[in-house]
Amino acid sequence: MLKKTIKITMLFDFYGSLLTEKQQNIINSYFYNDLSLSEIADNIGISRQGVYDHLHRSEENLEDYEAKLGLLKKYNRIRKNINDLEDMMTAKGILAEDQNQDLRKKLESIKSIL
Amino acid sequence: MLKKTIKITMLFDFYGSLLTEKQQNIINSYFYNDLSLSEIADNIGISRQGVYDHLHRSEENLEDYEAKLGLLKKYNRIRKNINDLEDMMTAKGILAEDQNQDLRKKLESIKSIL
Repeated sequence: MLKKTIKITMLFDFYGSLLTEKQQNIINSYFYNDLSLSEIADNIGISRQGVYDHLHRSEENLEDYEAKLGLLKKYNRIRKNINDLEDMMTAKGILAEDQNQDLRKKLESIKSIL
Repeated sequence: MLKKTIKITMLFDFYGSLLTEKQQNIINSYFYNDLSLSEIADNIGISRQGVYDHLHRSEENLEDYEAKLGLLKKYNRIRKNINDLEDMMTAKGILAEDQNQDLRKKLESIKSIL
């Protein structure tokens, strides 16, 4: 369940703005504000099953966007390779040198975009 | 026009798979296979104006995906920063050293993902 939650929230971070406002609200309530299906149902005036269906459909939509675009996978590959590069530069002592602080800063700024 | 074409084809590379098959076919014919509106119209059996409308709507859809997701902009920022990092490492002579060929390879593999 935790693994699934992490996957959905990562996909939501990426593609959430392509979902309808209602879908976004329900995902926010359930995954980020930790409300139960019943609480969400009460809040928006639909059945508990209705909330479940919305969540399930949103999940399918998010998976579908990733299946078509694959951007999350691509991002994760870039992130991993940047971390590898940083580790290699650290192991070689390059990033510790005073005159290479600009390289360290540049790596930090790349990681902040990712 | 060239600038616009480049923008649309970049957006299409990113988000094209979210368009309908018909939209994708028309964009491929027009921008990649260099067919005219009339030739495309003849090929798929709709009016020239119909082809124009499809192109125009596809363009709006692509712009809308970028407005919502901003992933092309993010990618371009990453690409620029990776190039900056590579230039800095080259200027310092780091990438020319024999023992740093692994860094050069890692940078190449990052660029190949982007």
